[in-house]
Amino acid sequence: MNTELLDVVGIGNAIVDVIASADEAFLERHGMPKGSMILIDEAQAEALYEAMGAAVISSGGSAGNTIAGIASLGGKTGYIGKVRDDDLGHAFRHDITAAGAIFRTPPAVDGPGTARCLILVTPDSERTMNTFLGACASLGPDDIDAELIRSARVTYLEGYLYDEPLAQEAFHRAAQIAHEAGRKVALSLSDAFCVVRHRAEFLQLVENHVDVLFANDAEIEALFETPDRNEAVARLREYTDLAAITLGSRGSLVVSSDAVFDVAVEPVERVVDTTGAGDLYAAGFLFGLTRGASLEQCGRLGSIAAAEIITHFGARPQTPLRTLVAN
Amino acid sequence: MNTELLDVVGIGNAIVDVIASADEAFLERHGMPKGSMILIDEAQAEALYEAMGAAVISSGGSAGNTIAGIASLGGKTGYIGKVRDDDLGHAFRHDITAAGAIFRTPPAVDGPGTARCLILVTPDSERTMNTFLGACASLGPDDIDAELIRSARVTYLEGYLYDEPLAQEAFHRAAQIAHEAGRKVALSLSDAFCVVRHRAEFLQLVENHVDVLFANDAEIEALFETPDRNEAVARLREYTDLAAITLGSRGSLVVSSDAVFDVAVEPVERVVDTTGAGDLYAAGFLFGLTRGASLEQCGRLGSIAAAEIITHFGARPQTPLRTLVAN
Repeated sequence: MNTELLDVVGIGNAIVDVIASADEAFLERHGMPKGSMILIDEAQAEALYEAMGAAVISSGGSAGNTIAGIASLGGKTGYIGKVRDDDLGHAFRHDITAAGAIFRTPPAVDGPGTARCLILVTPDSERTMNTFLGACASLGPDDIDAELIRSARVTYLEGYLYDEPLAQEAFHRAAQIAHEAGRKVALSLSDAFCVVRHRAEFLQLVENHVDVLFANDAEIEALFETPDRNEAVARLREYTDLAAITLGSRGSLVVSSDAVFDVAVEPVERVVDTTGAGDLYAAGFLFGLTRGASLEQCGRLGSIAAAEIITHFGARPQTPLRTLVAN
Repeated sequence: MNTELLDVVGIGNAIVDVIASADEAFLERHGMPKGSMILIDEAQAEALYEAMGAAVISSGGSAGNTIAGIASLGGKTGYIGKVRDDDLGHAFRHDITAAGAIFRTPPAVDGPGTARCLILVTPDSERTMNTFLGACASLGPDDIDAELIRSARVTYLEGYLYDEPLAQEAFHRAAQIAHEAGRKVALSLSDAFCVVRHRAEFLQLVENHVDVLFANDAEIEALFETPDRNEAVARLREYTDLAAITLGSRGSLVVSSDAVFDVAVEPVERVVDTTGAGDLYAAGFLFGLTRGASLEQCGRLGSIAAAEIITHFGARPQTPLRTLVAN
């Protein structure tokens, strides 16, 4: 298989999203902090599914969403992640392959099923995520396809990988291969609670191993233990040469060693579900970066890709993104 | 279980929709008549799934969508249909139960899997459907829950049931029980090709057994073998006392024995996927009818419910419909 000259290879938890509307009272009753991602076990996943409303099923996973987004923009991509050989795993494989990504990680043939993220979307369009990692727990360093990583300009890693010990090893092996091949490493901090769980390791990673950092304001504030975004940005610039900080409806900041740019959001008629907004911002940004766009253009591509994803349930593009950036 | 005083019981093919964007060339390459529903076998379903783009999975089935819609409006509903005891069947059961419907048809424990409808949505928002009926073939008269039917003001049947011989028997048994209990029977003609397949039986049904008929313009033109809608409507009034004819973006006609009303569409910002528009129109109309609304109000409720469903992928409401008709 020809894997020459890929733009981005993503490595992450291969998850299928199960998405339903819910009201604020539902979140309160189930003790879910709105807007966050919490980890649950299989029994909790089954009980929550019983309790939640009628659902839509769509492939997800943070890095998976980013890779599908880059492919939808016309980029050449690959993905590494672990599903089981069950129906949801089959759906995940279909969707990322149909998007155009190379995906050849073998599925687990025993153990827990393909990971599910039960997502509650409240009337304010905010998403609250409950993840059963399932088969993702068996992603390990042996799954890291060195040929695929060496072939890609950027290897994109999600912070969520740190929630499983074997996946941490896979993460480090991938970063090492990429750098030894003279490639860039990008990291998404994933979630503020995830940053709290792994703060020391993430700081060390950002300082020594990450060329491009993606985070939202809550995540960098958690990383630097300050409630002051400006202070967090100033600290961040001591640690990394390039970062993009998403600020929800307030747009994003592109932070380089010599400048900070404000990037506006792309207006949409109605925000339906914010799931995947950060993942798709990263998709647009990385697509621009690998194609030689200016940092301002990269931010704008991120805004356009994020705008498509928040107009519908599910974190995979439903309109080919290349048609949205053609003009 | 208390099944007193239901508004509507629906009987139909219990199907899970698998929905992807596609371009016109894809339909041409696969020989699909745009806008129609064609029946395919399991091997064809697998080949088409491989060929189609990244997909969203959502419970469907014409009568299932209508029943979920009535429940979302605040109506009391039941559903009869056959899934298998597999993952998709589990999802179908969850979704219709979570919507609030009583669903106690036992699943098939062997034979083909839960039915799938592979839906291609073209850039003009039109849907083209390819259905593998799977476990639906085993819905039979023994599945007709007489207590449930007697308890409902209206028994709603989909014409698609005529595509399987056992389901035809189930259809007739349900209509007989409803009428013997002094209840009303409603029928959706489902699809113009379906009307062509079963025209003589449908004419006889509409004349003798149907109190409320739902169809679109293509379906009544197929039923009366005329390309002239006015002529078809005139013929229709000889056969039934109450019918609602949907006309896509041109609204609908409510046809009673003493009047014909034009009903406008409810405007939407952007039509994304027309799947389920007719099913949800029927939901609004029947909800109004069972709650004593005027025929004009019934048509308007149909337009409001249809407007919600065409703004997103999937034929089940993503916003509680009762919140849209509150004012």
